[in-house]
Amino acid sequence: MELDHRLAFLEFRHPFGIAHGTRTGTPAAFVRIGHQGLYGYGEASMPPYLGESHRTAREFYDKAKKTLASVAELNIEKILSETDSLCEGNTAARASIDMALHDLLGKISGMPLHRLWKITPAQAIHSSYTIGFSSKEELQQKVNEASAHRILKIKLGSGNDRQIIETVRSLTDKPLSVDVNGGWTDTSFALDMAQWMKEKEVLFIEQPFAKDNLDDHAWLTERSPLPVIADESCQRLHDVKKLRGVFSGINIKLMKCTGLNEARKMIEAAKGSGMQILLGCMSETSCAVSAAAQIASLCDWVDLDGPLLIKKDYFSGVRFSAGSILLNERPGIGAEPIGNIF
Amino acid sequence: MELDHRLAFLEFRHPFGIAHGTRTGTPAAFVRIGHQGLYGYGEASMPPYLGESHRTAREFYDKAKKTLASVAELNIEKILSETDSLCEGNTAARASIDMALHDLLGKISGMPLHRLWKITPAQAIHSSYTIGFSSKEELQQKVNEASAHRILKIKLGSGNDRQIIETVRSLTDKPLSVDVNGGWTDTSFALDMAQWMKEKEVLFIEQPFAKDNLDDHAWLTERSPLPVIADESCQRLHDVKKLRGVFSGINIKLMKCTGLNEARKMIEAAKGSGMQILLGCMSETSCAVSAAAQIASLCDWVDLDGPLLIKKDYFSGVRFSAGSILLNERPGIGAEPIGNIF
Repeated sequence: MELDHRLAFLEFRHPFGIAHGTRTGTPAAFVRIGHQGLYGYGEASMPPYLGESHRTAREFYDKAKKTLASVAELNIEKILSETDSLCEGNTAARASIDMALHDLLGKISGMPLHRLWKITPAQAIHSSYTIGFSSKEELQQKVNEASAHRILKIKLGSGNDRQIIETVRSLTDKPLSVDVNGGWTDTSFALDMAQWMKEKEVLFIEQPFAKDNLDDHAWLTERSPLPVIADESCQRLHDVKKLRGVFSGINIKLMKCTGLNEARKMIEAAKGSGMQILLGCMSETSCAVSAAAQIASLCDWVDLDGPLLIKKDYFSGVRFSAGSILLNERPGIGAEPIGNIF
Repeated sequence: MELDHRLAFLEFRHPFGIAHGTRTGTPAAFVRIGHQGLYGYGEASMPPYLGESHRTAREFYDKAKKTLASVAELNIEKILSETDSLCEGNTAARASIDMALHDLLGKISGMPLHRLWKITPAQAIHSSYTIGFSSKEELQQKVNEASAHRILKIKLGSGNDRQIIETVRSLTDKPLSVDVNGGWTDTSFALDMAQWMKEKEVLFIEQPFAKDNLDDHAWLTERSPLPVIADESCQRLHDVKKLRGVFSGINIKLMKCTGLNEARKMIEAAKGSGMQILLGCMSETSCAVSAAAQIASLCDWVDLDGPLLIKKDYFSGVRFSAGSILLNERPGIGAEPIGNIF
């Protein structure tokens, strides 16, 4: 198998404020794996706080290229265990390889991956639309932009959380989810907010406290009338077990968990533990989001708005219609590059 | 794709008595589909009461051969919808094509089908062992032969059902299942038997009444302390919905339901209706049983003893160890012909 990669920078439509600060875009990489005359595509989106970069991606792909060169058979678990042994970390770069291999699997079989996997598509896959830290005027504009979406995801943790929710509620009565990105420290405040937000038709709270603060999360989960979902606290499969009883559910993102192969194991583990599942994304193109969409029907909530938040999409793939994700019938992950990326 | 078939007669180790009569063997057919240098294998087992025969199979394969000759891409659902449109019925012959295509899918992907489908293997797949109508002496011998198996399936409906259970109980305290093959007509007798067998550690009753007698089945299911499972009453996917509330569960057999593709849909439909699932088989070789074993971990009970009941197995595939089915790591359905069948 032959691996190629291209580096890119995904510029945001709006500079994006969350509890960690403000950014204008995300470094990304696209990969193509050639095998038996077919090509599989994948993507790595590498927000800087997760430790990956164009440099680490390039280093990883150089090693992976050599490993893949000697692979003749598309046994994905076997190939992934070989590429995974090349290094620690690099979860987004590894996810891009995982996606490209699954894309190949679908293309070799002539089937969309969700069909190959016998995942019955949900009647509608509603994706939430994310609104970062914003002034009152910006909120107005962004709520308007999100008019097609049934659920808005509001970033909290900026210090004026009640005011943000009040403003959004003055603009729309759509269900909301909130993502604190670990920005809260006071458990009583968090519980007050949870109770107050329950009345404001908020569906769930993501990552209220710092990622390693499991005690406070467990305390809040026990008392909160809203589900408490782990994002930063839940990266990989091995995290799922230890978060049972600590959170009500987990946010699975391909870029955190090395891709579809591990994501499916996490879904099974979470369901086995009675935990709810949010399928999320980074800022990413229709490549990675089309891959994630293949498993969206297995999840309780979907937050795959990545392609809507960037200025230029490098792939055509799943489309959005009235805030819902429409799977296509292309074989594999259902994404193809726009123009000559490779 | 290139289709070949071979006809065979699977002779039973013991002439087999059930409520319909006694037989010495079952007509069968093996198919091989060649595609891109790989071969997929499948099997049709055709007990005469289901209406298929060597003649109908040959006629079906002649048509399917022409259809498959023009197929270039392994999109299984699409190919099956084309071969299915060739004729009504022929469910076992169609199942053999379904198996061979899934075998190819696994071989092209280099993965066992259960891995490709991300079905987590159960810790152990215990298969029951079937004991047909027998004299007291024969029962003794057959219970001994089944010493490795954890569950015995006893055929009832011969008129001396209590005595059979009493005899088996005098020989072993293993859990039993019973299969009446529609041999009962009296609902009060059936309910008495169910209550009595509950004390005798019987796990469930298969098909107590005639296949079209849904009223009596519903009456018994409502009152029986044992689950009542549909076999003859449940052939295809469309049956599952109409049996909700009529039976506690269904017996899925590849030969009845046209293969793995439809079996997976039936499993999903049954689970969605809160019905239990028994995965069964006809008298068949390790080819069809290896195919069925790929989905066994999705089912509540497994009765895949086909290869143990015939004199000559034409395939090597899943193995039995201490009454459990051991999946192998061969790509596809995990079965290969023994010797030069083709």
